[in-house]
Amino acid sequence: MTESIKSKIRTVPHWPKEGIMFRDITTLLKDPEGFKETIDLLFKRYKDKKIDKVIGIESRGFIFGAPLAYLLGCGFVPIRKPGKLPAECESEEYTLEYGTDKIEIHKDAITKGDKILIVDDLIATAGTASAARNLVKKLGGELVECAFIVELIDLKGRDKLKGENIYSVVEFEG
Amino acid sequence: MTESIKSKIRTVPHWPKEGIMFRDITTLLKDPEGFKETIDLLFKRYKDKKIDKVIGIESRGFIFGAPLAYLLGCGFVPIRKPGKLPAECESEEYTLEYGTDKIEIHKDAITKGDKILIVDDLIATAGTASAARNLVKKLGGELVECAFIVELIDLKGRDKLKGENIYSVVEFEG
Repeated sequence: MTESIKSKIRTVPHWPKEGIMFRDITTLLKDPEGFKETIDLLFKRYKDKKIDKVIGIESRGFIFGAPLAYLLGCGFVPIRKPGKLPAECESEEYTLEYGTDKIEIHKDAITKGDKILIVDDLIATAGTASAARNLVKKLGGELVECAFIVELIDLKGRDKLKGENIYSVVEFEG
Repeated sequence: MTESIKSKIRTVPHWPKEGIMFRDITTLLKDPEGFKETIDLLFKRYKDKKIDKVIGIESRGFIFGAPLAYLLGCGFVPIRKPGKLPAECESEEYTLEYGTDKIEIHKDAITKGDKILIVDDLIATAGTASAARNLVKKLGGELVECAFIVELIDLKGRDKLKGENIYSVVEFEG
């Protein structure tokens, strides 16, 4: 089933730089059957998990996380780049290839004990996802799983999220 | 009906700067009934319009546009800030209070004659929305309507989109 999803993801070679094979989900999104199949697969996996909040990571995580929150009948919470959320935030730094970056969540977005599902389009080295996991824990959320559309398995992002449940729809070598 | 949606949008005074009353939709999103009510309202409005693609404008437009595309059974297309889309793009500049900004869309995202719905969270002066409209026209799309959650009516964004159909779920003075 996920082979048909994988076949709709376009690979753009050498983007954003030489040597990177960029996995472009926009070709999946614009395909009505492909988009629906992806969301339905996630819904089927999580519909009995009593999720309280789906967290989408800016900005491609919003595209999959928001329809899923709608179908699950739960709330949607954005995790965003610094300076985008207007109320009081918890923030978390993470390491990039060169330097660091930061993500933020509203402090009142999670109630202690909320069952949380984190959604993003891609897991590579899992820098962003592990920072998101830390934000959920800081606010007292119970992380049920981290779900991704694409996993770049050679980059071993799962190692950085050891102890957490991880799910990805399709895998690419790197 | 939309009063209950409006009541769930938080106003953050003086953000991001003195004098601005920021209308924060995150309080609506995290409320399961509020989020569902908003999406259902949009779905009811567009379900018989034979929309081919919902375009969401980065990044809050993704949160409303993606669930709507799912429900309508059509494709979802992101319009993004420059440098985020990996394949060949059409781009459009627009004017800000100081200086200019730019948005992009993949050239292959729209097929000539596609019936298009543009979705964003907010219409203020409509700089982004009118640039998005221009991108749709450049690619030969037929713009059915522009839908927003919040309209800041004092900023007269509708004037800049004259000739297009505009819908907003809730209105604030400014």
